[in-house]
This record gives sequence, C-alpha cells and structure tokens, in this order.
Amino acid sequence: MRTTVGIIGAGPAGLLLARLLHRAGIDSVVLESRDRAYVERRQRAGILEQGTVDVLREAGAAARMDREGLPHDGIELRFARRRHRVDFPALTGGRSVTVYAQTEVCKDLIALQLAEGGPLLFEAEALAVEGAESENPRVRFRHRGREDTLDCDYVVGCDGFWGVARTAMPEALSRVYERTYPYGWLGILADVPPSHDELVYARHDRGFALLSMRSPTVTRAYLQVPDGTDAADWTDDEIWDELDRRLETDDAWRLARGPVTAKSVTPMRSYVHEPMRHGRLFLAGDAAHIVPPTGAKGLNLAVGDVVTFARALVAYREKGDASRLDAYSDTCLRRVWQAERFSYAMTTMLHRAPDATPFDDRIQLARLDRITTARSAETDLAESYTGFPLDQQD
Amino acid sequence: MRTTVGIIGAGPAGLLLARLLHRAGIDSVVLESRDRAYVERRQRAGILEQGTVDVLREAGAAARMDREGLPHDGIELRFARRRHRVDFPALTGGRSVTVYAQTEVCKDLIALQLAEGGPLLFEAEALAVEGAESENPRVRFRHRGREDTLDCDYVVGCDGFWGVARTAMPEALSRVYERTYPYGWLGILADVPPSHDELVYARHDRGFALLSMRSPTVTRAYLQVPDGTDAADWTDDEIWDELDRRLETDDAWRLARGPVTAKSVTPMRSYVHEPMRHGRLFLAGDAAHIVPPTGAKGLNLAVGDVVTFARALVAYREKGDASRLDAYSDTCLRRVWQAERFSYAMTTMLHRAPDATPFDDRIQLARLDRITTARSAETDLAESYTGFPLDQQD
Repeated sequence: MRTTVGIIGAGPAGLLLARLLHRAGIDSVVLESRDRAYVERRQRAGILEQGTVDVLREAGAAARMDREGLPHDGIELRFARRRHRVDFPALTGGRSVTVYAQTEVCKDLIALQLAEGGPLLFEAEALAVEGAESENPRVRFRHRGREDTLDCDYVVGCDGFWGVARTAMPEALSRVYERTYPYGWLGILADVPPSHDELVYARHDRGFALLSMRSPTVTRAYLQVPDGTDAADWTDDEIWDELDRRLETDDAWRLARGPVTAKSVTPMRSYVHEPMRHGRLFLAGDAAHIVPPTGAKGLNLAVGDVVTFARALVAYREKGDASRLDAYSDTCLRRVWQAERFSYAMTTMLHRAPDATPFDDRIQLARLDRITTARSAETDLAESYTGFPLDQQD
Repeated sequence: MRTTVGIIGAGPAGLLLARLLHRAGIDSVVLESRDRAYVERRQRAGILEQGTVDVLREAGAAARMDREGLPHDGIELRFARRRHRVDFPALTGGRSVTVYAQTEVCKDLIALQLAEGGPLLFEAEALAVEGAESENPRVRFRHRGREDTLDCDYVVGCDGFWGVARTAMPEALSRVYERTYPYGWLGILADVPPSHDELVYARHDRGFALLSMRSPTVTRAYLQVPDGTDAADWTDDEIWDELDRRLETDDAWRLARGPVTAKSVTPMRSYVHEPMRHGRLFLAGDAAHIVPPTGAKGLNLAVGDVVTFARALVAYREKGDASRLDAYSDTCLRRVWQAERFSYAMTTMLHRAPDATPFDDRIQLARLDRITTARSAETDLAESYTGFPLDQQD
C-alpha cells in the first residue's frame, strides 16, 4: 500500500488528522490495532476546549457534538466546605468548554471517515516504522493475519503511550521527562443525573474528588485512591459515601446516587518525549506526552498536535514553505509544556500526597484562597483550563 | 516597671510598634537583649512593599527613607539566557517597592524612639512571659545584671524565631507548620555599583542567583548553595565567577565586580505558628512565622502584624470594640499564608533542588514561560510581590 500520510492509531488524534487531511485533499491511511467496537467503547476524557470545539466544527465533524454536547461556562472549586465558581467567559473574554465524551468524538469521526474518507483499517497492528530519515518512511503492519507495508511520504504516530511509533525515534536523540504520582483516580459512570450542572473539583483532607458528567442523565465521578488500588476493592456504596465526604459543603447541596455502570482505576503520570519529530516521522497526542487528567488537557493536546501537523503540511504543499513542518516539534512542545505545567499545578493543588505535611495542606488551601480572591490568579486558571486559540499555536 | 504594651525585641516589628503606639498616645516599653550597635549592624532584608512605605510615612519615620531609599518599579526574571522585566506599576495599578535596608529602618526608628518615644532598653533580656491569660501579663527580664519584671496590659512578642515569647504559648493549643529546604543563600555585600538598576532573579541549571543592591554604590548578591555551606569555603573570585555563570544572558550585559565587604550564609525555612495570640500575649513577625527570602516578604509581614495590632488596640481603647483584637490571629494569618504561598512558589520556581529531575527543570521553565507571556500570571506575581494595601488587611 502507498499513501501520502500514514497514520498509526484511530484514537481522536489519528481520526481527526485523517479528517483534516481529507478536507485539504491529502490522502492518508489509518491503521488501528483494535476492532471498531473496542475503539468506540474506550472511556476517556470528556472536556473539549473551545479551540477543540472550533476545530471539530471546521472539520465538519461537529453535528452531533453541537446537538448533544453540554457547553460549560465554569467549574466549581470546593475546599474547606466552601464553594467557589470560576466563571470562564467572564475571565477569558468569552471562552468556555464543552462536555462531550472522547468516545463520542471517535464514533463521529469513524462514521465520517468510513463514509467519505480514506482507508481506515481496524485490526491492523503497526509492527514498526522504518526509514523515518528517508524520503519514504514505511509502516510495517499485520492485518487479518498477513504482514503488509504502508509506504508513505510522512508517518504520524497517534498510537498512544504504549504505541510503536515512539520506539522508532533514535534513542541517542530522545529526551524523556517523566513524573509519576503516588495515587490514581477511581472513576465511575452512574445512571443518575449529575448533582451539579458544572464540574466540581474538590480538595479534601481525605483526598481529591471530581464530580463530572457524561450527559444530562449520566454522572461521571472520580476519587483519588492510593497507587495500586483495585477498583473491585470498592463497593458502590463505599464510593458514594466517600464522594459524599469529600464533596461536603456548608449548605444544603446533596449528592444524588444511582446505579454504577462502570468502575475503573486510572494511574496518574506526567510524561514528555522530545523531540516530537524525527525526519518524516511525527508523534502526536499520547504517543509523545501524557498529562494527569486533573487539567482535562490530554485530548485537547492531541487535537493541537494534529492541527499543527495538518496546517504545516498544507503550507508546505501549497506554498512550498517547509518552515512549519520543520518547527512542528518546537511549536507543539511549547503548548505541551504549558499543559504539563497546568496539569501538574492542578494535580498538586488538589490531591493529598501520602507524605503530605500540615505545611503542604496549608499551602494548598492558600493557593485555593488566592485563586478564589484574586482575579489575576483566577484568570490564569480560567485561561489555562479553557485553552488558547489554536491559531495562536502554530 | 509597668506599661500598657510590653514589647519584646527591638527589630523593625518591635520598634515600629512602639512608634505607632506612641503616635496613638499609648505607652509602651521595648526590651531588647542586644546592645544598640549590634541591632544597628544586623544585615537583613531590604525590600519594602508599598504598604510598608506608606506605614513608615504615616508613622513619621520616613524622612531618610524618602531621601535615600530607591523606588523600584519592577524586577527582572532571568532564565534560559533570557531577560524579562516585570513592570509593577503597569500590572498593579501603580504599586511599586522601595529598596531600603532593614538595618536603616531600625536606625531611624531607634533614633526617633530615643528622642521622643517611651523607654527602649538595650541589653534587656526577656526571660519569660507570665500570666498571658490574665488581665496583667508580665515579662520577666534581666537588665544590667539585675532581674526585673515588666507589668503590662498586653505583651507583644517581636523577638524573632529564637525568642522567648512563643514559648509562653500553651503547647496544647499550638500548631506548627514547617518546611526546610535543602539549600541556603550565600550573600555578599560589595563596594561596587549594582550592575542592573533593578533586582535580577535568575533561574539557572547551576542554581538560583539574585542580584540586588543596598545603595547606588553597594551591590548585594546571593547564590543558592547547598545546605551546610560555610561562607569561608568560597573565595571572592569564586563567588563572582559563579554569579557570572548564573546571571548569563544572550546580550552584552556584564556583571561589575568589586571588593566584597561581607559574606554570610542564610538557611531557608518556611515556618508558621498558630495561633498568633493567646490571651493578652500577641506574636508578631519572625516570632510567629518565617518565610524563605525569595519573595522579600519577611520584614513586610512583620510590619503588617504590628500595624494590625496597633489599629486593633486603638479601636478597642477609642470605641470599646474588642473584635479586632480578638480577630488579630486570623487577620494576620490570612496574610501570612498568602506570603508563605508566594515565597514557597518563588523559591521552588527558581531554586534547583539537589534531587531535581529533568521534568522538574522543565516545569520551572514552563512556569517562567507562563509568567513572561501571560498577563494574568504576571499580574499575579506583581501583586503578590508588591503586597496588598494594609488597610485591606485588617
């Protein structure tokens, strides 16, 4: 097989990239190791920055998101039994976020790709990327039991943290930045309308809690749990009890309970691989960087990466200007490190480390006090949370 | 002896408090364990917030400061060979700071106190505070070889971190919050005009450096050094060489060297004792809290404490309103924790910990990148550095 852009991975990054290239008249092939049902079932993030929403609209992939997505104009910070709302549009000149699950974005993009896009091969496992430094990089892959080769002008690895694309980067040129956290998130989905109409981020002496939603009838909620926790160790009642404790307020607010339909534990990690490009191999999304979920940045970073690549390739093909392709890694990494910074700051402000001292606790409360009393600090958070316009990023 | 307010310690907090009380017609006695020459020689902080300057003026103690102090409208952040100026007035609606050494503030206040204030006893060592819970607390002290007792309506402990006042707080009611840092500051004074007209805070892979000044002809500079460093281990040339390395820029800026006249190492510590009041015993300044010097907050916090106490006592005596005296600890601690937060943030953003990972380094650079590109984050820093109006603090 031969194509212009070989895309490894049919997560939101790979699928959106295929869509953007298709709209620009550039052909691509997407290789996905799993089957379609698996990809459409994967539960991941659910907060789309304004810039991500804008890109999906420009890509003609926003019809259902615009019907079913929930625009959110703020979040609530909860600490010391207090509640404080951060008003995004008021602080950022009109920016907000949209709650629409990543898995729904994927479903929409898959349907579009199959209907009008280039080849999207499920159960096509990439085995290796070869010739990244040449004019014609190749992806060796196995599809329906047969090995095959995809010859490309460019290869974009959108195959996640455990994918094969990053391993094709020469070790001597690679720099890895990493931090793990001694806790994870126990997440649930429950068939009960969310108890608050925006997301609630709670800092509590017992640990972090996040009250979120998937839809007007489905609650998504998370609890900080020790590293290595098995979701099966927690009964549904224990989870609701603990959410109740950590989300406590001084007013009459109450948490509504309902049947838990899914339960899982996510580890927390910060990770960046530099550079994000080698020759004609480009990394995008989790293949190059991981953020802890506290800042709701993972999906949005992936979108930023593929938009940067698509625009750079269009600029090169239409104007012969290779500078944006050459700058791909630097352009993305600047945004990536800002997201890493923000995700790290949110994580350490809201989670209780196992070795936290009373001094650490007070610093967390002082940081929250600052954000909730100083417009400058609150604006900094609101800008970072809602993200920056993508057209300022490349 | 008997007085209304017994003040332990003739540092800037104790001296300013005596002055403020004198101006309000309230008598006090100041006990200082050291002799006058020692007190007037102690090298400490040198950055006065706008609010501190305003208070010194209101107290009629600003004549020399207004002549000799250096108003500074900004600081420079230096990192990755880049230079970025933070413009305080532009970001804070006109606020700035003044460089005027704490030791000069003390000299001015001592001269005023001796000329027109109440008793100021040097070489008067406080031994114990007794009866804090009674109507008439007492300070036992030794003066010129004789033990004596100072009977008071109120005792204010301005006797620093190692002072006796805090030890009179009942242990069962005390809460201590503390953090030490695995590095200190090697500070020098040098007879050479400062190489930059504002303070330079430098983050470098080799460690933090601060270029400051005492006057137009005297440079003050600091280097981050490992915990336990002896100032004698560093020759003057080694200090200048290291300052040169850490203050490096991409432009033609040069560091001017001159004779080093003083050299010392300061450890770094964050410390808060709660509450700051028990009965009629009040703690102020370093007696209750320590900040690492990176945020230039120590002296200014002490000023905030004694202003809060003086205003509260005046309100009680003039209007019979005890609420501000009762709220003293809470009022001060809110400001204290904001200063602790800011000092901790500045310290961890600019110093290289011995166990810093490459990820930590990048997060520091991302924080600096954010401050130097986002007005919200830069404003947050400028507001925190210049401090808040004291009349909003109590």
